[in-house]
Amino acid sequence: PFPGSGIPTLMSDTLFIHKGEMGERGLPGAVGQAGQRGLRGPSGRKGQKGQAGPQGHSCKQQFAAFSVGRRKPQHSSDYFQHVTFDTEFVNLYQHFNMFSGKFFCYVPGVYYFSLNVHTWNFKETYVHLMRNEQPVAILYAQPSDRSIMQSQSLMLDLQEGDEVWVRMFKRERENAVYSEESDVYIIFNGYLIKPALE
Amino acid sequence: PFPGSGIPTLMSDTLFIHKGEMGERGLPGAVGQAGQRGLRGPSGRKGQKGQAGPQGHSCKQQFAAFSVGRRKPQHSSDYFQHVTFDTEFVNLYQHFNMFSGKFFCYVPGVYYFSLNVHTWNFKETYVHLMRNEQPVAILYAQPSDRSIMQSQSLMLDLQEGDEVWVRMFKRERENAVYSEESDVYIIFNGYLIKPALE
Amino acid sequence: PFPGSGIPTLMSDTLFIHKGEMGERGLPGAVGQAGQRGLRGPSGRKGQKGQAGPQGHSCKQQFAAFSVGRRKPQHSSDYFQHVTFDTEFVNLYQHFNMFSGKFFCYVPGVYYFSLNVHTWNFKETYVHLMRNEQPVAILYAQPSDRSIMQSQSLMLDLQEGDEVWVRMFKRERENAVYSEESDVYIIFNGYLIKPALE
Repeated sequence: PFPGSGIPTLMSDTLFIHKGEMGERGLPGAVGQAGQRGLRGPSGRKGQKGQAGPQGHSCKQQFAAFSVGRRKPQHSSDYFQHVTFDTEFVNLYQHFNMFSGKFFCYVPGVYYFSLNVHTWNFKETYVHLMRNEQPVAILYAQPSDRSIMQSQSLMLDLQEGDEVWVRMFKRERENAVYSEESDVYIIFNGYLIKPALE
Repeated sequence: PFPGSGIPTLMSDTLFIHKGEMGERGLPGAVGQAGQRGLRGPSGRKGQKGQAGPQGHSCKQQFAAFSVGRRKPQHSSDYFQHVTFDTEFVNLYQHFNMFSGKFFCYVPGVYYFSLNVHTWNFKETYVHLMRNEQPVAILYAQPSDRSIMQSQSLMLDLQEGDEVWVRMFKRERENAVYSEESDVYIIFNGYLIKPALE
Repeated sequence: PFPGSGIPTLMSDTLFIHKGEMGERGLPGAVGQAGQRGLRGPSGRKGQKGQAGPQGHSCKQQFAAFSVGRRKPQHSSDYFQHVTFDTEFVNLYQHFNMFSGKFFCYVPGVYYFSLNVHTWNFKETYVHLMRNEQPVAILYAQPSDRSIMQSQSLMLDLQEGDEVWVRMFKRERENAVYSEESDVYIIFNGYLIKPALE
């Protein structure tokens, strides 16, 4: 009798009245809270091993050495006579200048020098080992009718540019050193014992 | 006739009864679930590179060298006479003690020694190279009316504390070595060839 | 008068109508957003310290050295006579072969050699320093009634396998070198100055 469904119906004396409709469904709940922050990341990887240390100082050993001989005899005609050499046994880096007849110091330091000559019969053997223009040691033999070997050796602490060489010294008497083309009697040696800068 | 709006009204015999009001809106839904935990954080940065290693061993070369001269002649007055020196050509780290007149070995190893003297006319030249109290090599010349250079050389494998020096030995005859203030005739050299510990 | 609770009741002429029930609770809210990403992890540990650097170059110094003596005199009976030695002052790694009486070059390079002998009264002293079968330098003294020391020294640039030794040379005259059991007069030295390969 009444339009609309769900409407209570009045029947006879009895009145049926429909209750109101259920309310609308509530609104959706609020959005959930954001999740917890993620765990902290794991530790980074260990750093690389350090590089190997630098190489130790190199023993850049320095060398200087000469050994020169003379096959020709030599007489001192002047007051001073430079003894030169004609044979190279060893001449590292040409530090002994065969033209000037002098060792030129390119590597400063302590050097050992040795000189061997042969005397000439009845003549003096009067020789100096020279550092630049300064005689530093003598090699001397009185004259005699016997020819023999004569030697001298020493060390010098040289500076770059120093020259070491052999000089004959003539006084009143004749002065000479003996050698032969076929046999080396006169030998001058020198080599670096300790460089100044290591 | 009835208080409240939206209330059905009873009219005449016909009773129009309005349905009850709609119920109230439901309560909001529950809060949504928390979001998922965030992703794990990224890895930490890589650790720093380690420090560079220490420098490699350096070539610590060892040196010992002396070259000493004597400008004064010396006569042996006693049975044994110690030959001392007054001129230093080279004396690295003072290993040659000018007061004691002896080389003192601070760096054990193989050494080369060379000795040059000049003879005295009509006198013997009778000299020993000494290692501590032991003669190790002789430098000898018979007497003569001619003065000459005389040399000897050798190597010794020394221990720390060993001393090497020059001794004149007097027998029946007079014994002497010659030199001059202005010219060095007598020279004693020594230097390390190979250290015992490299 | 009406079954069910919450149903409006008709009383006398007044009609009370019940409102609808409250709606259902809303649906749960949506899931929250994912949490933020975690913090970056801590940095990794520092790497290990690097290894020590390599040793400096050329630290491997090479050595060769001998110093041998002779306590017995020696006469040259033949045209050529090999001078041998009976006493070792120094003989590193046995490069001087006491049986063959020769230095054998195991380490090529520049060597210094020195030889000291003592003359024999009225006899010649005629000795060569030999490289293999080649004389390279002479040590010579004319005969005399005076016995003295005689020396020679030089350097040679040797190759592996080269041999250096001492040879007496007999001509018309007798040739000899002097020494004594109790005193070493004859000494032959040699040592490496500079190896060919550093």
